[in-house]
Amino acid sequence: MTITDVATYMQEVGSKARAASRTLAASNSGQKNLALNSIADFLHDGRKTLMEENQKDLQAGREKGLSEALLDRLALTPGRIDGMAEGLHQIATLPDPVGEIFGMGYRPSGIQVGRMRVPLGVVGIIYESRPNVTADAAALCLKSGNATVLRGGSEAFHSNQAIAACIKQGLEQAGLPEETVQVIETTDRKAVAAMITMPDSIDVIIPRGGKGLIEHISKDARVPVIKHLDGICHVYVDDEADPQKAFDVCLNAKTQRYGTCNTMETLLAHDTIAADFLPLMAQAYWEKGVELRGCDKACAILGEACTPATTEDWDTEYLAPILSIRVVDDMRQAMDHIEEHSSRHTESIITENISKARRFLQEVDSSSVMVNASTRFADGFEYGLGAEIGISTDKFHARGPVGLEGLTSVKFIVLGNGHIRT
Amino acid sequence: MTITDVATYMQEVGSKARAASRTLAASNSGQKNLALNSIADFLHDGRKTLMEENQKDLQAGREKGLSEALLDRLALTPGRIDGMAEGLHQIATLPDPVGEIFGMGYRPSGIQVGRMRVPLGVVGIIYESRPNVTADAAALCLKSGNATVLRGGSEAFHSNQAIAACIKQGLEQAGLPEETVQVIETTDRKAVAAMITMPDSIDVIIPRGGKGLIEHISKDARVPVIKHLDGICHVYVDDEADPQKAFDVCLNAKTQRYGTCNTMETLLAHDTIAADFLPLMAQAYWEKGVELRGCDKACAILGEACTPATTEDWDTEYLAPILSIRVVDDMRQAMDHIEEHSSRHTESIITENISKARRFLQEVDSSSVMVNASTRFADGFEYGLGAEIGISTDKFHARGPVGLEGLTSVKFIVLGNGHIRT
Repeated sequence: MTITDVATYMQEVGSKARAASRTLAASNSGQKNLALNSIADFLHDGRKTLMEENQKDLQAGREKGLSEALLDRLALTPGRIDGMAEGLHQIATLPDPVGEIFGMGYRPSGIQVGRMRVPLGVVGIIYESRPNVTADAAALCLKSGNATVLRGGSEAFHSNQAIAACIKQGLEQAGLPEETVQVIETTDRKAVAAMITMPDSIDVIIPRGGKGLIEHISKDARVPVIKHLDGICHVYVDDEADPQKAFDVCLNAKTQRYGTCNTMETLLAHDTIAADFLPLMAQAYWEKGVELRGCDKACAILGEACTPATTEDWDTEYLAPILSIRVVDDMRQAMDHIEEHSSRHTESIITENISKARRFLQEVDSSSVMVNASTRFADGFEYGLGAEIGISTDKFHARGPVGLEGLTSVKFIVLGNGHIRT
Repeated sequence: MTITDVATYMQEVGSKARAASRTLAASNSGQKNLALNSIADFLHDGRKTLMEENQKDLQAGREKGLSEALLDRLALTPGRIDGMAEGLHQIATLPDPVGEIFGMGYRPSGIQVGRMRVPLGVVGIIYESRPNVTADAAALCLKSGNATVLRGGSEAFHSNQAIAACIKQGLEQAGLPEETVQVIETTDRKAVAAMITMPDSIDVIIPRGGKGLIEHISKDARVPVIKHLDGICHVYVDDEADPQKAFDVCLNAKTQRYGTCNTMETLLAHDTIAADFLPLMAQAYWEKGVELRGCDKACAILGEACTPATTEDWDTEYLAPILSIRVVDDMRQAMDHIEEHSSRHTESIITENISKARRFLQEVDSSSVMVNASTRFADGFEYGLGAEIGISTDKFHARGPVGLEGLTSVKFIVLGNGHIRT
């Protein structure tokens, strides 16, 4: 399909999405779950076609000289296709957030007032290479009653279109409009510019990709954006920390996975325990191959095991086996450091002192604040949200891991018996 | 005070607000309530100065030829000053939303996960002539733990500065930073342009004023905006409506007050009952001096009492004793009309049929949806929010009447005992 007038095409996509969102808002959980399970079946049964279409993308990627890492993210294997299908089945089993009524109570006037959870409407997703996002994101939006407009990376164009075809079949099977999920059928970049400036058709944009993509979209958007920027996460080891818990958490928070946003990037150690604690930690990190960059005090304690940190280190999301370490005078200084350098994603304190824990929980302004736990827990699945469309580092609307509830809004409902205001 | 470099001035205001917001987030309810009560006392005791400063604005307003209505909105009388003070005392008595912990529960990993309500940070308020907004808005933000940057209308400049002086005294009395509430000290319009493009310093903008102001701000803002556009509210009288309830609600929804956003602007009547119901209603409206504009069927029923509605009528927020009336075939057509013409503020159905009520509540996509109640109830006080900083016609973050909770965000909190992720 060749699209010459992208602006007109996007307007059509937008109004179809808006219309579909209305049908979807009035559909029931059974229908939505049937669609999710059917899409999973069509993905499973269509593995051969999906892999053939994926081959076109891989071939083009190789010709364009994409890195092996990018090609790997792009590849659809039978295992990955089954993973997508399994994800859809799981989303079908989650409770439907739409229609929940809460807070109903009588007011002095005699009316009953409460709230009802409703879909946002139309969600726009802009993402990069991994084609499984097409199925995951569409499924979460579908379950929460939202129509979706998806714009994937141009390098995954054929794969995404093949997944879109399965989604359409599944929607049709469940009697839902096929425009409930639309994957943009052009790689023209004007489509992105249009998507983020259509407040009449799209209620929220969720970018999934690198910081560059997200910053670019946030800057130009005329639609609310649920955005996830850096994860510069801190663990503060207090002088009243249990040494074993501190050791376990600091090792896990840094080394369980290096490339994730909830990985610790800076360790803050209280001066009193630093000389005992840091050498033990350094030994464990050395065994894992983690490079250490420290403040003067940390370097003095660790000697050759640590190189001096530069000022940029404190503001860097390494996403790599590198850790910056600072020795602080007290919790106040740790919290000031966090205030200045954190990306407000996740911070943890290790302490046995409940008053300090209480204060840290209250005063640290991050989307997740933890006591005696690894920052790696900051995740929609670990939090029991069932699934996650992203992690918001904003404070507005949704904050932290965003599950189905973050894709909804609430309206007030009022029940009377002919009540009038006097 | 003469401010020549508005951009630099606004940057300073912004960073002071950010710093103050941190102190405020760590303050306790007692301190905030003390500040609110002290401000009320300073307003009460400073009535003479407030009225003198207000006279300067009124004098300038008369010279500029402001209308009597505008001059009236601008005027500070002893009664209005007492009203402001009383409002502050009332906000002091509301429960503090900050710090509330909810949803705590154990996860299979053993960690406890829940959420804590926290302030948004810094709220920017842009408003027009009424000086009492200065005190009201600052008080709601203070109670919810947010610092505030206020930009009032230039015609109320002296009044707003005088109120700001009382606010500073009250904050000082309570040991809170005086920069917690800052009223912009220039009437230069560049200050507004700066305010709405400072995401590092201001977390959300709440415009309070006419549609023009709000549209202008929303268009150029680089910060989330809680906006309140039109209130084109509908009442649908079903064929299974109780006639007395329908009569009471339709009279109240239109005539209790004309200039409010939750006033009914269009009445939708089911074809079956229209011939009986509309003449009764028209008689009551006639007695109140309400002009009626109807569709062909309504005009046929009402004869001279009704003039034909134009297509614009269905999209007009009259804010006046004018009502448009349409006869519809059924609830589906009523909901389609609402879908097309409503501003998504408030709609009500009058029916005794629970299945229709249930469907109307589910499918109508407005911030308040009602059954057998007057649209005039759509209000923060009537809903029990205690106070209201505005009514949001957006779906993102806050929807409908926005009270203290709408000025907060939530963060995840996690309690472990040395838990690590495996």
